[in-house]
Amino acid sequence: MRQVFYSSTLTEEIVITGGDAHHLAHVMRTQIGDVITVVDAEGQAAEMVVTALTRDAVHFRMQRVLPAETAGREVILVQALLKGEKMDFIVQKAAELGAVCMCPIVTEHIVVRYDAKKAAAKAARWQKIADEAAKQCGRRSLMTVAPIVSLAELLQDPAYIGAADTVTAFCYEQEERQSMRAVLRGTEARRVTLIVGAEGGFSPAEAAAVTAAGGQSVSLGHRILRAETASLTALAVTQYELGNLDT
Amino acid sequence: MRQVFYSSTLTEEIVITGGDAHHLAHVMRTQIGDVITVVDAEGQAAEMVVTALTRDAVHFRMQRVLPAETAGREVILVQALLKGEKMDFIVQKAAELGAVCMCPIVTEHIVVRYDAKKAAAKAARWQKIADEAAKQCGRRSLMTVAPIVSLAELLQDPAYIGAADTVTAFCYEQEERQSMRAVLRGTEARRVTLIVGAEGGFSPAEAAAVTAAGGQSVSLGHRILRAETASLTALAVTQYELGNLDT
Repeated sequence: MRQVFYSSTLTEEIVITGGDAHHLAHVMRTQIGDVITVVDAEGQAAEMVVTALTRDAVHFRMQRVLPAETAGREVILVQALLKGEKMDFIVQKAAELGAVCMCPIVTEHIVVRYDAKKAAAKAARWQKIADEAAKQCGRRSLMTVAPIVSLAELLQDPAYIGAADTVTAFCYEQEERQSMRAVLRGTEARRVTLIVGAEGGFSPAEAAAVTAAGGQSVSLGHRILRAETASLTALAVTQYELGNLDT
Repeated sequence: MRQVFYSSTLTEEIVITGGDAHHLAHVMRTQIGDVITVVDAEGQAAEMVVTALTRDAVHFRMQRVLPAETAGREVILVQALLKGEKMDFIVQKAAELGAVCMCPIVTEHIVVRYDAKKAAAKAARWQKIADEAAKQCGRRSLMTVAPIVSLAELLQDPAYIGAADTVTAFCYEQEERQSMRAVLRGTEARRVTLIVGAEGGFSPAEAAAVTAAGGQSVSLGHRILRAETASLTALAVTQYELGNLDT
């Protein structure tokens, strides 16, 4: 079923305006009587029927509240900055694959550098890409794109690493012994944080810092994966192992 | 270690010429005395030392034969044709993720159509992309890109579906009950064939034909994945489940 997001809380009757109304009318070609899944700011979803369409507003009436999604185990992707197009790609795929948050980080070996203005523009662009992907793939909640931080800052933040409910899999190209499987099957943690590097990987000092902060370095096998392949593979197998690709 | 392919059988001394010699000298900046992994047409690999470099030839002497890769369980990707760039992308990623073969197919809902000449050009282009990716990711054997066939032809071919040693996971967007996990964990088959559709998916008649030929339809979860995301996810989780992402 088609799905739209509603920026407030669902009530018996709602009106969607602005860009979303335009999208409903002109892209999704919505008609009066159509039933659409509307997801609100809290992730509550309902099937709602279109009762009126004007030039810039779509009116809905509640038909059926949908059961809440069970609060499953969640995945966060921490991604070292890649060149423009590849980063856009990873944001889109992370949203499609159900990551709850994507945090871009600065590491020693990245090749792109942004000043504050450019970093803000990038963050806005990535959030837009994530929101579009969320709409298209029918997920109930949006993926948050966090502001760019340094690896050192990230390692201080218990939202990503070090908390009791979090396991952090650090995809390190020098790791030769521990597999992703060993880490994923050995944990019941509610949150899995994946840390993936840029094309040049991580320095030994960075790897030591991640491990000291509680990260577990893992290998994705003996083939050398490109940065974007590593991210997607890590995300896909983690969601698979957590049961988030099940029916 | 850097790796090149050698189109014949490895002997004590070999000479690599042509485009590969150029790549070694000018892209990889090989020097006399460098040790490089050379993989021959049978997948046998050896560490070989560079003994001489001329304008269009690189001479090697055997240093150490590497142990053969264990013949693990293998994955084949059958992919309905997508628009140019996306298909190139999937070929590259399938090679990186270790698929042994990628077979492009024509289905009802594809949007691209190629005449015989264009199809041959495409096949050559995809094989080249696969070979480049194999070189870059350090895999020991090349991924074969099969000629484009119709879904009906594919379903007649025991190399892909129906043989006793093969399980075929059919990624079908209408499947709501069977998960990929159920199929992968329920089999010891030596070969897993993945069938993934184009943007428009498969028709009910096509789905019935795949199932009748022995395919098991699977879901990749409740989010709607783009075609290229579905292929990569299916490949990644299959390789993960078969142990091919382990150290």
